[in-house]
Amino acid sequence: MSLAIGLVGLGAIARAQHLPALEQVDGVHLAALASRNATLPDLPCYPDIDALLAAQPDIGAISLCTPPQGRFDQAMSVLRAGRHLMLEKPPGATVSEVEALREEAARRGLTLFASWHSRAAAAVDLARAWLAGQRLRAVQIDWREDVRKWHPGQQWIWQAGGLGVFDPGINALSILTAVLADPVRLISADLSVPEGRETPIAASLEMRTGAVPIGANFDWRETGDELWRIQFDTDEGRATLDQGGARFAIDGRVQPAADRSEYATLYARFRDLVARGERDVDVTPLRLVADAFLCGHTQQVEPFQEVPHG
Amino acid sequence: MSLAIGLVGLGAIARAQHLPALEQVDGVHLAALASRNATLPDLPCYPDIDALLAAQPDIGAISLCTPPQGRFDQAMSVLRAGRHLMLEKPPGATVSEVEALREEAARRGLTLFASWHSRAAAAVDLARAWLAGQRLRAVQIDWREDVRKWHPGQQWIWQAGGLGVFDPGINALSILTAVLADPVRLISADLSVPEGRETPIAASLEMRTGAVPIGANFDWRETGDELWRIQFDTDEGRATLDQGGARFAIDGRVQPAADRSEYATLYARFRDLVARGERDVDVTPLRLVADAFLCGHTQQVEPFQEVPHG
Repeated sequence: MSLAIGLVGLGAIARAQHLPALEQVDGVHLAALASRNATLPDLPCYPDIDALLAAQPDIGAISLCTPPQGRFDQAMSVLRAGRHLMLEKPPGATVSEVEALREEAARRGLTLFASWHSRAAAAVDLARAWLAGQRLRAVQIDWREDVRKWHPGQQWIWQAGGLGVFDPGINALSILTAVLADPVRLISADLSVPEGRETPIAASLEMRTGAVPIGANFDWRETGDELWRIQFDTDEGRATLDQGGARFAIDGRVQPAADRSEYATLYARFRDLVARGERDVDVTPLRLVADAFLCGHTQQVEPFQEVPHG
Repeated sequence: MSLAIGLVGLGAIARAQHLPALEQVDGVHLAALASRNATLPDLPCYPDIDALLAAQPDIGAISLCTPPQGRFDQAMSVLRAGRHLMLEKPPGATVSEVEALREEAARRGLTLFASWHSRAAAAVDLARAWLAGQRLRAVQIDWREDVRKWHPGQQWIWQAGGLGVFDPGINALSILTAVLADPVRLISADLSVPEGRETPIAASLEMRTGAVPIGANFDWRETGDELWRIQFDTDEGRATLDQGGARFAIDGRVQPAADRSEYATLYARFRDLVARGERDVDVTPLRLVADAFLCGHTQQVEPFQEVPHG
């Protein structure tokens, strides 16, 4: 039997990723939408999650794609209504609210899937398998993109709790913590916050796993080529996980990766978690970000303007 | 047999609390000290933890009282040397490093006790027991003291990772999360950071447990009467946990509390955890603080001067 899924939020990520994935994956189907502003043809559409839950008691699972700041109350409504829940990353505005959701889901015996889409990128499993046989020396993360391209006009990313450049950077951290065997801890952080904004436009982190140093540079001011890359230096050479996890190369030789879509993989996993009555709630990437704010040095940088000068 | 304990760090908290407690508690005794600058008469003293560990293989347990920023490497040395470990609060500069310590201790089958001294205050158990039978409506925390009195000349509290006013405030959070049955989540925070410093001198938090609102005001600028109080409003009345957890009153009637010292209680618990081969590592209070930095609004306030004007 196919799992009926209600989608909440119809922003850029929902249209570009969630809708096609829901078409593609066997055993799940889109059954309703909740959105303040948008509707979809030939689909029951509701103004908010509570209206959807009340009108559609047969929809057993909900996928939340709304921004993290207001998501907790929606998530709690879903669990209280006895429905399984999948969360777009990041799973919450704070670590403590995700822990509260985890406890609520466990108490009710419901599936909660805090998804990290980059972990489902095509070559991440290859990297994990290769690293298991290596002696690691150093890791370097470079994650550079243009905020104006990826978040045009979005204000929530600049407001407290919106994560700023950690919104993409947390994708790198989700991959990092998935491919390394030992825990990663934050050592120090430098956060560059534009004048008049509350979240960083750039950040550099120093981390460690065991004694191995891990550097990370996240930058939202890249107007040239995007770069979403993690380099691993080991006793035997250098491996590069590139294109946000889609491509893995060992000493320059690209390794054949599975042909798969991140979000199709996520929905297939959600379907399987529901079928097995399991949960998957890993807060590790969000915890590292919270640690960066907790112990990081903040410096003010020049104001960010949505439309650049010149 | 008495548990031999090596003490690391001989600052104000070690002299005022740890040394008397180690005298007082049956089944533990102070066997050595590591301190950069200080020594104690009639006791083996070492310049650092590694020297102590190397010279004293029979000391089975270490208690760390050094500031949180540099503590991880010391803690890891202790665990790698196969010794049990007790940590003064906060247990680390980041949540992720405490998780790494927890995993290391578990892998080695060692006791790790991340202590929260305020949880051992005389009336905290009374509050927990009373609240278990109550329907909670609201909680208000007020934690006000004079930083110049409690941290004279200490620079680490103002540096990134030093927590600022959360250094005392985390005591309130450690009590809060110990007396409430359900998880506490952070909703929003306002942090007041003095010009030229990196950590807040005051903070106000909005939290919730279930639907119950919890407010907290932490302030280090109080030069009058100190206040370390948590008020609980329930359907049946108001209870007040005061004096940092030492006094509990229901509708103004003070309840008889145990006559005990916080640190004696902690060392007795450490002794028992070691005897039972158990760990006690609750990061919840530190996680709430990290969440406050993660999603909080920061405002700059007037510079803090160690010696006030006038």
